[in-house]
Amino acid sequence: MTIQFSSRVANLKSSFIRDILTASQQPDVISFAGGLPDPRLFPMSALHQASEKVFQTWGGCAFQYGATQGLEVLRAYIAENLIHDVALTTDQLMITTGSQQGLHIVAECLLNPGDGVIVEAPSYLGALQVFASTGASVHSLQSDAEGPLMSSLESLLKTRRIKLIYCLPNFQNPTGKTYSLSRRQELSALLKNYPEVILLEDDPYYSLSYTGPSLPSLFSLLPGQSVRLCSFSKSIAPSFRLGWLQASGHLLGRFLKYKQIADLHSSGFLQALLVEFLQMDTLDSHLRRLREVYANRLDLMTEVLTTRLGNQLVFAKPSGGMFLWCQLRNPALNSSLLFKQAMAQKVAFVPSQAFYATHPNYGALRLNFTHSDDSKIKEGIHRLAKLF
Amino acid sequence: MTIQFSSRVANLKSSFIRDILTASQQPDVISFAGGLPDPRLFPMSALHQASEKVFQTWGGCAFQYGATQGLEVLRAYIAENLIHDVALTTDQLMITTGSQQGLHIVAECLLNPGDGVIVEAPSYLGALQVFASTGASVHSLQSDAEGPLMSSLESLLKTRRIKLIYCLPNFQNPTGKTYSLSRRQELSALLKNYPEVILLEDDPYYSLSYTGPSLPSLFSLLPGQSVRLCSFSKSIAPSFRLGWLQASGHLLGRFLKYKQIADLHSSGFLQALLVEFLQMDTLDSHLRRLREVYANRLDLMTEVLTTRLGNQLVFAKPSGGMFLWCQLRNPALNSSLLFKQAMAQKVAFVPSQAFYATHPNYGALRLNFTHSDDSKIKEGIHRLAKLF
Repeated sequence: MTIQFSSRVANLKSSFIRDILTASQQPDVISFAGGLPDPRLFPMSALHQASEKVFQTWGGCAFQYGATQGLEVLRAYIAENLIHDVALTTDQLMITTGSQQGLHIVAECLLNPGDGVIVEAPSYLGALQVFASTGASVHSLQSDAEGPLMSSLESLLKTRRIKLIYCLPNFQNPTGKTYSLSRRQELSALLKNYPEVILLEDDPYYSLSYTGPSLPSLFSLLPGQSVRLCSFSKSIAPSFRLGWLQASGHLLGRFLKYKQIADLHSSGFLQALLVEFLQMDTLDSHLRRLREVYANRLDLMTEVLTTRLGNQLVFAKPSGGMFLWCQLRNPALNSSLLFKQAMAQKVAFVPSQAFYATHPNYGALRLNFTHSDDSKIKEGIHRLAKLF
Repeated sequence: MTIQFSSRVANLKSSFIRDILTASQQPDVISFAGGLPDPRLFPMSALHQASEKVFQTWGGCAFQYGATQGLEVLRAYIAENLIHDVALTTDQLMITTGSQQGLHIVAECLLNPGDGVIVEAPSYLGALQVFASTGASVHSLQSDAEGPLMSSLESLLKTRRIKLIYCLPNFQNPTGKTYSLSRRQELSALLKNYPEVILLEDDPYYSLSYTGPSLPSLFSLLPGQSVRLCSFSKSIAPSFRLGWLQASGHLLGRFLKYKQIADLHSSGFLQALLVEFLQMDTLDSHLRRLREVYANRLDLMTEVLTTRLGNQLVFAKPSGGMFLWCQLRNPALNSSLLFKQAMAQKVAFVPSQAFYATHPNYGALRLNFTHSDDSKIKEGIHRLAKLF
């Protein structure tokens, strides 16, 4: 029997990264591959207290079916305490089952086959897969150190039927790049001339800035025309599978209808646990500790890389996030082939090929610096150095 | 600015039931509308113990990113202890974010616009909405007391390009009907002649049989060609948003790829909590208690209905599940209009109109008997009786 799958999934490949992750999860491999936080830094004791509070004071109501949009008290906390650059009501927020679900919902609600989507090159693989499944036409944007080039964006907007622009303005995955303030302003000013285009701002690393306060979100500069996705996966813990989506009402209403058919609502128990955790007022001190440790690991990794591999790799040190993007100086080298040699040395990274929708580039490596401790960072770079 | 939404959601209506649920959640309304379990019966103390165990023994690894397919130990428990009619390996199981997500994934992976789907008339509204969003052509099946009529099914299979058949064989939502053993056998025998058609068996109420052991699942009679969805929402608690999907490998592999883009994976913390709860071996005694209470409520509701409304309503007492389907004896009455009068009397139900993909029927009411206690059941039926 041959099953005819839908066109959505007929060509959907398993995530290259997930395959690499599986390979790199052998216990003796030092993995810089996954986008994983360090589980030793999860706020376990505060989460445990929060869980006790839910069992003691919420009781059965935390375990019943709930509203698709998410708990009002959680949305109110987010609006008041976690969004500083724009005033939002709880009506403009929706709780999602991780920000991956937010991405999927927005794409499903806005994209018909053939519609144009603009992405950065390179960009987050999970987003490229979502866009591919909708049958949209994906166009790649050129960038410099400050963010997307306006000339490249305007030329696409003028010549293609564009519906959506997907941006990661803070500590981009995979490059670690952050858009400058002036580039954010230019981008939102340009998009005001194309009111039918929606800007999708993916901001999962917003709480991981190592050099001071974050710049204003694109959403705050273009509120009626944009959607912002945030996650608790990097700031608290991934397995909560909780994030939020910001959008104006005319968009959010449609997203809610789609979320209803996708999973009814996100876990009310986990939302209650998150509310109790947030109300303990330990998030700020937790994030300060997280940023301190991760910033030190980034410092260490860039130092060791410069010493051991400075003649082989070029990188710009990111100001936040989880990733360091290292370009190979030797244009004859291919990072996908290098990956196989690296696995033989028991060290893993993600080769650049994975992050391109069109015209793959084989000339770079994505290294995660948040999951491994200092000694593993040193040993892992030492193993990497043997490849050259 | 006018947003052009995708064709998936352009015509997606907000669930009529969700609107009714909102109306019926006023505190002085007695609601037989929602498909809600009684939160006073959630196994809170065992869940609390299980949560303690996760914090004490699993630690950070329960909070990290996890595998898309779900925890191996949870899938092994399900295969060994919760599936009795067919031998499955953990490879044939996938953990879903509620069985609603299972439904969404199967539909998205199998249905292109225009593909044919067969549903019972009436059927679960959440499934009808999912099928509508894919652009599939939905065809309604005729049934009798034993389940779908084979003549009706065969005629659709012969004349339409059918891809999927959606069945709720146990205590169907909304009718409470259960397919007889012989009808299950006829159905699977017939479908063997149509190997390109997938049977989607939705079985959320499998643990709520009030009259003895369940009949063999359709999946067990047609394993290579069917997908079965189960849920922990009715047996443990809805807010876990955990269910499972059974399918053979060639189907499951594709579903996994789609789940990966939809939400990466279901909460690992909740899966760990569920594993600890299940390993306490209290599920059976919990389910015995649940079935006892719910069966008593069903007895009470049918008694009071017979006494108070026997001359107005006809119903067949279901052998399990959560719903009683009451047909109006007077063909001139319309249950959607009756609903408005009921709300004035502070009692709610779901009018039959909501459950039809084609040719709506206005002649019945769906009453939930699991959420209200005895005194509310009596008072609610008393209020209903005032409408006639």
